[in-house]
Amino acid sequence: MELHGGNILGADVAKSGAATFRAVNPSTGQELDPVFHEATEAEAARTLDLAEEAFAAYRSQPAEAIAKFLEAIAAGLEALGQELIARAHAETALPEARLLSERGRTVTQLRMFAALVCEGSWVDARIDRADPGRTPVPKPDLRRMLVPIGPVVVFGASNFPLAFSICGGDTASAFAAGNPVVAKAHPAHPGTSELAARVIQKAVRDCGLPMGIFSMVQGAKPDLSLSLVRHPSTRAVGFTGSLQAGRALFDAAAQRPSPIPVFAEMGSINPIFVLPHALKERGAELAQSLAKSVTLGVGQFCTKPGLVVGLGDASLDTFRQTLGSLIGATAPGIMLYAGIAARYGSSFSKRCGTRDVQLVSSTSAAPGISKTQAQAAVFATQAQSFLQNAELREEQFGPSTLVVACGSGEELEQVAHSLDGQLTVTVHATEQDLKEHAGLLDILREKTGRLLFGGVPTGVEVAPAMHHGGPYPATTDSRFTSVGTAAILRFVRPLCYQDAPQDYLPLELKDENSRGIWRLVDGEWTRAAITSIAPART
Amino acid sequence: MELHGGNILGADVAKSGAATFRAVNPSTGQELDPVFHEATEAEAARTLDLAEEAFAAYRSQPAEAIAKFLEAIAAGLEALGQELIARAHAETALPEARLLSERGRTVTQLRMFAALVCEGSWVDARIDRADPGRTPVPKPDLRRMLVPIGPVVVFGASNFPLAFSICGGDTASAFAAGNPVVAKAHPAHPGTSELAARVIQKAVRDCGLPMGIFSMVQGAKPDLSLSLVRHPSTRAVGFTGSLQAGRALFDAAAQRPSPIPVFAEMGSINPIFVLPHALKERGAELAQSLAKSVTLGVGQFCTKPGLVVGLGDASLDTFRQTLGSLIGATAPGIMLYAGIAARYGSSFSKRCGTRDVQLVSSTSAAPGISKTQAQAAVFATQAQSFLQNAELREEQFGPSTLVVACGSGEELEQVAHSLDGQLTVTVHATEQDLKEHAGLLDILREKTGRLLFGGVPTGVEVAPAMHHGGPYPATTDSRFTSVGTAAILRFVRPLCYQDAPQDYLPLELKDENSRGIWRLVDGEWTRAAITSIAPART
Repeated sequence: MELHGGNILGADVAKSGAATFRAVNPSTGQELDPVFHEATEAEAARTLDLAEEAFAAYRSQPAEAIAKFLEAIAAGLEALGQELIARAHAETALPEARLLSERGRTVTQLRMFAALVCEGSWVDARIDRADPGRTPVPKPDLRRMLVPIGPVVVFGASNFPLAFSICGGDTASAFAAGNPVVAKAHPAHPGTSELAARVIQKAVRDCGLPMGIFSMVQGAKPDLSLSLVRHPSTRAVGFTGSLQAGRALFDAAAQRPSPIPVFAEMGSINPIFVLPHALKERGAELAQSLAKSVTLGVGQFCTKPGLVVGLGDASLDTFRQTLGSLIGATAPGIMLYAGIAARYGSSFSKRCGTRDVQLVSSTSAAPGISKTQAQAAVFATQAQSFLQNAELREEQFGPSTLVVACGSGEELEQVAHSLDGQLTVTVHATEQDLKEHAGLLDILREKTGRLLFGGVPTGVEVAPAMHHGGPYPATTDSRFTSVGTAAILRFVRPLCYQDAPQDYLPLELKDENSRGIWRLVDGEWTRAAITSIAPART
Repeated sequence: MELHGGNILGADVAKSGAATFRAVNPSTGQELDPVFHEATEAEAARTLDLAEEAFAAYRSQPAEAIAKFLEAIAAGLEALGQELIARAHAETALPEARLLSERGRTVTQLRMFAALVCEGSWVDARIDRADPGRTPVPKPDLRRMLVPIGPVVVFGASNFPLAFSICGGDTASAFAAGNPVVAKAHPAHPGTSELAARVIQKAVRDCGLPMGIFSMVQGAKPDLSLSLVRHPSTRAVGFTGSLQAGRALFDAAAQRPSPIPVFAEMGSINPIFVLPHALKERGAELAQSLAKSVTLGVGQFCTKPGLVVGLGDASLDTFRQTLGSLIGATAPGIMLYAGIAARYGSSFSKRCGTRDVQLVSSTSAAPGISKTQAQAAVFATQAQSFLQNAELREEQFGPSTLVVACGSGEELEQVAHSLDGQLTVTVHATEQDLKEHAGLLDILREKTGRLLFGGVPTGVEVAPAMHHGGPYPATTDSRFTSVGTAAILRFVRPLCYQDAPQDYLPLELKDENSRGIWRLVDGEWTRAAITSIAPART
């Protein structure tokens, strides 16, 4: 498939703007074909006008049609085969094996939402039947379910060119809920984005859905992103990326005449607390798994563990040295694009020069190092220095981690207290550790969306019980996840029908419950039709 | 009980500030005893420091302890008997019968949340069991449930001195979820607020809970409210009141270094669309019920119908005249306080002078009218005037409504399109009307949180299926309700435990499911313990 380099506006391709750019291969520094056209202001506005127009028809689709559409996108991605993988590799330097696995995750997500929509209980249907004989006032018939919120703007992430980009979890969950999507491609992988967007565009057409439910715009300027957030038809925003960019989108959304929710997943330092007994028992093993987790994908994961906290003793010294040796021995990796590597490089240098912070070990730069190569590193410091330097609590996006030695259980708790909100907190602890540090666990639980006992936080399972979110600044809204089936809850709102005629009600709320979904009827969860339930008290 | 006029800071009473005020009886204009002390900046900050300290202990309480606490508040309110009703009447001019019914609603809410917490399934527990044999990577054990978000600031509303104030739905749902509450009393009913707050304070003590979980501050200055929202320990805000005040709180929350959610319910005009066949069939009956709904509680309800839209024909003329006669014949009512009556009065005068708007009828002012008396009114205009004048789409808080005559079905849709977000939209329609105006219904559904078929929007049922919320500006967050059991979802966030030892897990997530709650286990809803479920695929 030859890339056209344009923006996708529903059924059309638009490239009316003068500003263009090219993708760059981070492994070689070479520019790639073709030229991509940044969306103009008018093109960006048009995507949301189309979405608004298409919303009414899309939100009325039966669940089966939406599921078929999600399945068609999944099949279309797979059908692209090597073409998609090769382009994604050229644009991101992510290895083929990783991209294959990411594609697997992406199609799994699409199919998971298709299954969720087919099953149907996610709408949280609640029915309180009328009681016309109630005094002093009759009780009305109330039927409530979740309905789509409206056009959703999705910002592609640089670090997951498939699973958190054009056809990633945000798009899949927004579509599943019945919303149109306008996707903004990340400028580091415009070709991968176009391929994915054209798969969606074709799926919309093949499924006979209104073409306006999907558009994709290219571009790198913040103004373009902000204009999408500010468009009056935009009802919600999904974003994965930096704190700075995520906060800018959040602020723009909050300042709208009519504010809208922004679900920005902005990463965190994902601390690992290694308690003394566990460290003695499994320090060597932990160093192995941690070294892999820190350097996985050149450290470019939201859940990369960027902080390891323990009690400063001989075991921690050994652990730190082992971790240093392992990470120092890894091959230098190529980061996603020059900008991200430059930011990592400068934060690496800054940390090297930070008072009371030691560089334990780092990978040697290869000769002729490209400007996208990153040195993996282990830094170390003491609790008091960590507590006094807020910069050490900020995310360093790349293959590095910081080991903090505490002088006491009290300092462990102080370090825990000092942390911002996190996507994950991991505790390595024996039963005895958990007993001896119950207070620490109480603190950590309030800081995070996911609390791991053992293991490493990278590798976010796509599952109903997953929560990939956390208190600010991990995300802008700790109440929602961007991974797993619950991600659909970001893009819906409840609608309550009072005394509606059966004919007018959606299938999910009619007496007969033809879809057989779980519903809360008069306070009891049931899959039964209403005729088969004992009538309400009269 | 003699009122102390102080602020309640956990176990203590504080009145260190120099600024004081008194309640005013809106029926007489007389000041009431005692003097109330506005909370100082230090006192306000102290409430949230106490809440933060108490949070860890409160969030670990068993469900039964929280339920017992909510029940104790309900019983305490009832035990106040006539004292509470008399003070509320003196401060608000609301009739005794209404206040008795509001107290009933308030204790019902508290008991409803107690029952919800005891039953326990509201935590939306989800368990995905481990599959250690999965390739290429083992599947972890994931267990997710909703946990309290942290200290909640609740702003008492003027129009519900009990049900949406100190011990109203916001407080009940925040406590039920496991959060401390700092309540800001509405300055129009400080004595009622103190009585309710002291009931809560006593319930905290009697139940042996940490005293810091509840505080109540008095005051009227916006700076006090903003300081509560800006305090770093505040994690969420509940508010019912005006658009201007709600938006100010929302903006302050969004501009925090760490933004927090604000659930501001700011009212709406609650349009009633009367379609032609229904109007012919039941116009007279509708005029009766609508006249009552508009003037109920002197029009001081968030759900007061402030707009009636129909096709301009002889039936609508008759209906408008009937409605005018009925409303014109009602006795002038006393509003909650002078400020609210003054705002109503000036908006009434302005509307009387608005071009192309006719005053159909209004109650005559009684001789020697007090400055809190309100003239109930029916205004009328044409669709084109309504479309051209945005002010006519704004809430007029008080006993008035506006009848808009449309020239065609198309104009009906234009009027619907022009509306902002609403708490409620009501449609009076026969089967034939619904068929002939399907497009109108599609528009209206997107504008509202509750869609009524017949009836009037006042009288918000407290029930699981209720949704009292709606697109902005009805509320700041259309995804949440402030009435009904789902209101608890505002003050929680998911927390996911990965590979946690059984001993460490909360009851709701342990295998045995000793509480017998509904859980999503490996994708299936069940109340069974995990040992009795077939093991996951290995």
